[in-house]
Amino acid sequence: MEHTLKSLDRELEKLHAAILSMGALACEQLQRAVEAIAGGNLQLAEHVVSGDEQIDRLEEEINALVLRLLALQAPVADDLRATITALKIASALERVGDYAVSIAKRVAALKGLPPLRSVRTLERMGKMAVGLLADVLDAYAEGDAAKAENVWQRDRELDELHSGLFRELLTYMMEDSRHIAACTHLLFIAKNIERAGDHATNIGEMVCFIVKGQTLGGERPKGDSASLPAAEGE
Amino acid sequence: MEHTLKSLDRELEKLHAAILSMGALACEQLQRAVEAIAGGNLQLAEHVVSGDEQIDRLEEEINALVLRLLALQAPVADDLRATITALKIASALERVGDYAVSIAKRVAALKGLPPLRSVRTLERMGKMAVGLLADVLDAYAEGDAAKAENVWQRDRELDELHSGLFRELLTYMMEDSRHIAACTHLLFIAKNIERAGDHATNIGEMVCFIVKGQTLGGERPKGDSASLPAAEGE
Repeated sequence: MEHTLKSLDRELEKLHAAILSMGALACEQLQRAVEAIAGGNLQLAEHVVSGDEQIDRLEEEINALVLRLLALQAPVADDLRATITALKIASALERVGDYAVSIAKRVAALKGLPPLRSVRTLERMGKMAVGLLADVLDAYAEGDAAKAENVWQRDRELDELHSGLFRELLTYMMEDSRHIAACTHLLFIAKNIERAGDHATNIGEMVCFIVKGQTLGGERPKGDSASLPAAEGE
Repeated sequence: MEHTLKSLDRELEKLHAAILSMGALACEQLQRAVEAIAGGNLQLAEHVVSGDEQIDRLEEEINALVLRLLALQAPVADDLRATITALKIASALERVGDYAVSIAKRVAALKGLPPLRSVRTLERMGKMAVGLLADVLDAYAEGDAAKAENVWQRDRELDELHSGLFRELLTYMMEDSRHIAACTHLLFIAKNIERAGDHATNIGEMVCFIVKGQTLGGERPKGDSASLPAAEGE
């Protein structure tokens, strides 16, 4: 029995470490994608696009680890919760990776279009989202529910920045039709960054679930549905 | 032992039924959201928004079912695969529900803006996505991998319609700045519908995983990243 317990602990540690590697990579990808947009850096953008494969591979590895752990160790209680949550966190991180690619792919499209100073706001949004993600990964690493809840609160600032940027971009488009194409890209990039922040929040909820065995009280963190900025008529 | 096996089968059947209920609801929500946009029907839109709670509740129920099943029955092999996949399908269906809400919330915003005939294309896209989702749920109900693969193929048509619509909307915005606000909403709605189609495709992959024990060969179904229409400069 002791042998089995040790082996379970070892497998859980492996899973924990895999999530942290995947998280660090997702964070890096998002940061680079935003940097590539801010600096119009095509090479960095391509780097992000080609880096996505590694994130996908890590998710597959984590899925396989979880399946093996469940089949061979049949964890219960806290261990089961940590195992299943790892699966969900990996899926959220994979989405963040996809957003990074989505953002990076627009660097080429923005080349040659008239520059807009809203890119600075996007850069701020991007830094904020990367910060949320990094902090929630720390919270996961340390099993720190308070830190995870803090991310949950801070996501609101990101949503507010997003709403403001949305209004700004609509105004630019109306003022000068030459800005329409660029603004459209920035609208989608802003949405992607805001969604990455939502995923950081969701991961925060999962950390609380692991630590406390229950989800955060109060209103649910905002998903795509609730995150439409006020400027869009809600 | 026989007793335990029967009880496992019963739990798996319950899980299967819960996924199908959740799927039917997600399908209905998406269909209604598209109908609400096409007809400018505010009441129907509100109905969709308030209906999301039920989808969220169903996901929570499925999560709880899965955790209990894993803890008490410790399924292995095919049964374990079916259990874990149910968790992932529920998560995809919850996202589809969020997209439906996202779409429905834009009905109010579109009221009072000059109407655009692109709404017809959106309606077609919506019907296509609902069809993909309904078919993939049938494939899940029947354990039919061929049907699931078919959904995977058909998602391309939806992506093509999306690319065409994207270009069309950009043109309208450039021709007449009074169309900018409405077109921006339609751009996001189109993106949401396209994403719902991607989730149907992902569910199709999971059905193949349950039935065959392996994922679909060839290229991965397109996620947000790969699904940027050509008009966006890729």
